[in-house]
Amino acid sequence: MIERLCIIGTGLIGGSLARALRAADYCREVVGCSRNPEHLQQAVELGVIDRYETDPARAVEGADMVLVAVPLGAMEPVFRMLRGHLPAGAAITDVGSAKASVIEAARRGFGELPAAFVPGHPIAGTEQSGVAASFPELFRDRRVILTPVEQTSAEATARVRAMWEAAGAVVDEMDPAHHDTVLAATSHLPHVLAFALVDSLTRLGESDEIFRYAAGGFRDFTRIASSDPVMWRDICLANGDAILQMIDRFSGDLQQLADAVRQHDGETLQTVFASAKQTRDRYVDKHT
Amino acid sequence: MIERLCIIGTGLIGGSLARALRAADYCREVVGCSRNPEHLQQAVELGVIDRYETDPARAVEGADMVLVAVPLGAMEPVFRMLRGHLPAGAAITDVGSAKASVIEAARRGFGELPAAFVPGHPIAGTEQSGVAASFPELFRDRRVILTPVEQTSAEATARVRAMWEAAGAVVDEMDPAHHDTVLAATSHLPHVLAFALVDSLTRLGESDEIFRYAAGGFRDFTRIASSDPVMWRDICLANGDAILQMIDRFSGDLQQLADAVRQHDGETLQTVFASAKQTRDRYVDKHT
Repeated sequence: MIERLCIIGTGLIGGSLARALRAADYCREVVGCSRNPEHLQQAVELGVIDRYETDPARAVEGADMVLVAVPLGAMEPVFRMLRGHLPAGAAITDVGSAKASVIEAARRGFGELPAAFVPGHPIAGTEQSGVAASFPELFRDRRVILTPVEQTSAEATARVRAMWEAAGAVVDEMDPAHHDTVLAATSHLPHVLAFALVDSLTRLGESDEIFRYAAGGFRDFTRIASSDPVMWRDICLANGDAILQMIDRFSGDLQQLADAVRQHDGETLQTVFASAKQTRDRYVDKHT
Repeated sequence: MIERLCIIGTGLIGGSLARALRAADYCREVVGCSRNPEHLQQAVELGVIDRYETDPARAVEGADMVLVAVPLGAMEPVFRMLRGHLPAGAAITDVGSAKASVIEAARRGFGELPAAFVPGHPIAGTEQSGVAASFPELFRDRRVILTPVEQTSAEATARVRAMWEAAGAVVDEMDPAHHDTVLAATSHLPHVLAFALVDSLTRLGESDEIFRYAAGGFRDFTRIASSDPVMWRDICLANGDAILQMIDRFSGDLQQLADAVRQHDGETLQTVFASAKQTRDRYVDKHT
């Protein structure tokens, strides 16, 4: 049970967690914090938060749980503003899509890594953003990865885990670097490919006609290209090494397919396509 | 109105057209044809066709409309079996995803391009295949592209157009090469990328763990990797030149993005992502 939850960054993720914890009666009070008073006012009107502050140091006063749900590029400045202001006994966690960079941001922002800080990442979201898109079921049966490090207190980790479980999520723990590799593969690379594809087609010069003949498969394939550009810029900057490795691997595999097309090598094409279909049917339908 | 429709290849596309034309009362009798009697029996039991033949030459007897809905690789053999057997006055069309290759297959199979042959391509489908997956609304408000050539009779083109319109589709006409370029961009390249991505991740060696953390975006992005491997092998072989051009363009654009990641060039990343989001939001929601 959380007495006072402070959510810094009241967008889709922060707003959905607040809604989920309220629905589960797991949280007595929610204090929102953002640079944008209009967003905060909207969050109050939607019943997502009870009240708000625009200064993170004031927002966390009296909180026993702090969720930092700001873009990756804003993590370090937020941590710096919180330095010396975290209430004793509060646990603090984040929702950043790259963990090594957030841990480094926390180390720099706080001066040293607080024991109360539990790096975390809910594997959930939509291509929407903003508190108006938030909904309490966003995390239901979704995975949340926590990446506690040596300095992290086990008690803080347990409280953050309990919070996500109250929101309906399944919580795993993982090494930060491993998290960053896994997410580069399953999320960051696909987003880069979707953005790159739409960009590539846009530059064909007849994109209006091109998109007229796009069918349902294309709509599904490119849905993630409607994601927030700033968030994805930050992810690419924060998890660049792992993403570059995945792009390199993928580019090599794509060139092998291109070679098979060039050489009219139907056997290789069918083998690769069949293997991909088998994997996709087996794993994705099982896990999502 | 069609008196006797002969559908060679009674799968998702052929079956859905039969269902749509029956629902629209546009067709008195449907004769199915396939190499597989079990599929044909299933199509009869589902009420999709009235009766069937396994020999294309016999199946088209007395038909006034012939739809060839077989994989691209089977087009030329089917056309060869139909040589000399097309009833006078019958129009014949196909549903192949690449048009230049089908036109060449018809030229070779029939000896010369029949005036009654109207190359066509309905831009519709799902990742499913087979007659059991067919449904009458598959073509509703979807585009069908016809690519008549110099030899094609205007009367046959008009009848094929009327058939697709009766099934609820919007019919456009286009040069075959232009069709192949547009489809390479909007359909063939995305499918190759989806297959390549899933294949690439499978080869990471920890794919079970990797896919456990795949979220909804990944599921959408890779749905088309569940498509029929043989069909896509054939498309890659039939439209190889246009697909290779698109892969080359895409690979270049992807490398530019990778360079931006490598150089921590957040401005370029954000610009490309924002442009892609804008295009995707604008065109795709408008057209699909």
